Amino acid sequence: MKKKIAVLPGDGIGPEVVKSALQVLDGVATRFGHQFETTEKVFGGAAIDQEGTPLPDDTLEFCQGSDAVLLGAVGGPKWDKGNVRPEQGLLALRKALNVFANVRPVQVFPGLEHLSPLKSSRVKGADFVFVRELTGGIYFSEPKTRNGDGAVDTLSYTREEITRIVEKAYELAAARRNKITSVDKANVLETSKLWREIVEETAKKYPNVETEHVLVDYAAMRMISNPASFDVIVTENMFGDILSDEASVISGSLGMMPSASLSESGPGLYEPIHGSAPDIAGTGKANPIGMILSIGMMLRHSFGLEKEAAAVELAVFETLQAGYRTQDIYDGTGTLVTTKEMVNQIHFRM
Amino acid sequence: MKKKIAVLPGDGIGPEVVKSALQVLDGVATRFGHQFETTEKVFGGAAIDQEGTPLPDDTLEFCQGSDAVLLGAVGGPKWDKGNVRPEQGLLALRKALNVFANVRPVQVFPGLEHLSPLKSSRVKGADFVFVRELTGGIYFSEPKTRNGDGAVDTLSYTREEITRIVEKAYELAAARRNKITSVDKANVLETSKLWREIVEETAKKYPNVETEHVLVDYAAMRMISNPASFDVIVTENMFGDILSDEASVISGSLGMMPSASLSESGPGLYEPIHGSAPDIAGTGKANPIGMILSIGMMLRHSFGLEKEAAAVELAVFETLQAGYRTQDIYDGTGTLVTTKEMVNQIHFRM
Ligand SMILES: CC(C)[C@H](C(=O)O)[C@@H](O)C(=O)O
Ligand SMILES: CC(C)[C@H](C(=O)O)[C@@H](O)C(=O)O
Repeated sequence: MKKKIAVLPGDGIGPEVVKSALQVLDGVATRFGHQFETTEKVFGGAAIDQEGTPLPDDTLEFCQGSDAVLLGAVGGPKWDKGNVRPEQGLLALRKALNVFANVRPVQVFPGLEHLSPLKSSRVKGADFVFVRELTGGIYFSEPKTRNGDGAVDTLSYTREEITRIVEKAYELAAARRNKITSVDKANVLETSKLWREIVEETAKKYPNVETEHVLVDYAAMRMISNPASFDVIVTENMFGDILSDEASVISGSLGMMPSASLSESGPGLYEPIHGSAPDIAGTGKANPIGMILSIGMMLRHSFGLEKEAAAVELAVFETLQAGYRTQDIYDGTGTLVTTKEMVNQIHFRM
Repeated sequence: MKKKIAVLPGDGIGPEVVKSALQVLDGVATRFGHQFETTEKVFGGAAIDQEGTPLPDDTLEFCQGSDAVLLGAVGGPKWDKGNVRPEQGLLALRKALNVFANVRPVQVFPGLEHLSPLKSSRVKGADFVFVRELTGGIYFSEPKTRNGDGAVDTLSYTREEITRIVEKAYELAAARRNKITSVDKANVLETSKLWREIVEETAKKYPNVETEHVLVDYAAMRMISNPASFDVIVTENMFGDILSDEASVISGSLGMMPSASLSESGPGLYEPIHGSAPDIAGTGKANPIGMILSIGMMLRHSFGLEKEAAAVELAVFETLQAGYRTQDIYDGTGTLVTTKEMVNQIHFRM
């Protein structure tokens, strides 16, 4: 198989983790006989510095013409006070690629339960997937403006926008443990009432999938008190932003969480969920696993390479099992390694 | 002192916990020589059953003419499918009383750390207060409607609405550990940018208070990874709904958390944060402490009775220290008691 991949290293630890992931991707290419043509493009804060905009036209066009996009991380205090911010590039890229479905698996790695801030008894068995709507809702709806002495944002959704994300979630649930938790605030929001209606309609098409509706405030509680009770969680953009970040911390290993943002038919966008961590950039402390598992998601979701994706995941698990730990997941046992050493260990197990 | 208190038992365990709290309030009256004139009014699902509306005019008028309002809990599956819901009464009551500041202390009770789903090392020392804007934002702004094939909600805030809640938070922080965490989503929302500006302006008036701005997604993470790092958290209505519920579960004792909703000058609204728990209503399993500590907040915030409030809190702590536990906080040690027995123990220590 031959694929064209746009690579956006971005800021902070972005470039380091991207470099790591590409080494693993090379391993996949060699072992399975594929050709992955990767091209780096400037994006985020780095692009603001070089070109005055976080998403240069050339970068966007190249992404649109690729089979998939790999992204490291964007942002940093350096750009926080400017009037154009790296995050604007991320939002614009999501919108332009129409990647409406943000898919984030959350799992507690076997043997790493003790890293969780939750008691091991609570997190044990937690293994679920967030499906967050990513290109609509309050992030993008108009009006969004100053309004006399005040300000206004708008949360709007069309039936079509809700339907496609809900469908995506049901497809995923049908391939997993057949359970959907739809999160909304239907006791307050009109958009949530519509959301709930569409979930009910879609549920009828998947008789084997069990559906529950949970209010967002209660979901925020259950995420901590009983994370193992979820399989697939589907929700709108802002609730998904908050809850998926809440969820990511319960695993205790933020640096190891991947994500995929998928469109109907164009290239998907793959990135670790961690930030750009400027404080550790260049020190060799970054955990490359979130980025490497994002490569796994790319192989599976964009290229349909299930076997290859599984090989990447297996190499990661075996490396962890063998006791290798970057700084962020090191607790005094096992072998403390740098980003590069971790990648070598994973690559070696491919 | 003589005070007139409107009592809204509501639904589920509401009436039981309200009854308990009134017994403790009686204790306060006797010991300190006050007169609390309490009058029950129908509200919530019970009011829908009796009068077809969750907030009858007579109930609202009585609340408006009182010095404070005590509320048990509202809602239940019985009313979930109807076209008028108990929660609408709650929202209408908040709006009518103009209780814009929802104040929720979160603490881990000494000796009860093990009830938390978090590791004891994480929750130890967690002791903070949520200040949630309660009468504005996406809960109340218009348009909020179906919109062709879709739906729309509006999140708007005026400068005045933001200023008064932020001021309230700074006042509280100045009387505590002098630290404000303002939560927003300023990288996406216009209302958050305005919010952040107003926080910056207000901060200048409180040079002794340390101020930090945290994005809502990151706040949801830090609530779990480092809850002891907060003192006063101030945020808008919806973020406050989600985060304060998330926070409440980390204490491991949802049934013991009180809340106060305060206006500029009218009666405050006091309620435990737990729901109506229809499954245990009438079984004597309800924990009355959330309601009793809400009475404490009423004594302090509405009546300025600091000594009396402290007496209530002390009685609660001593009862817990003596090992009395309702079902929800019982772990095999101590003495398992019913709602009534717990109240008797607290009353006895007044
Ligand atoms: C950077 C920010 C705009 C973004 C979001 O809120 O979507 C981030 O938090 C995320 O979840 O990817
Ligand atoms: C019942 C509901 C409308 C309410 C809210 O969202 O404000 C509740 O969750 C709360 O926090 O008091």
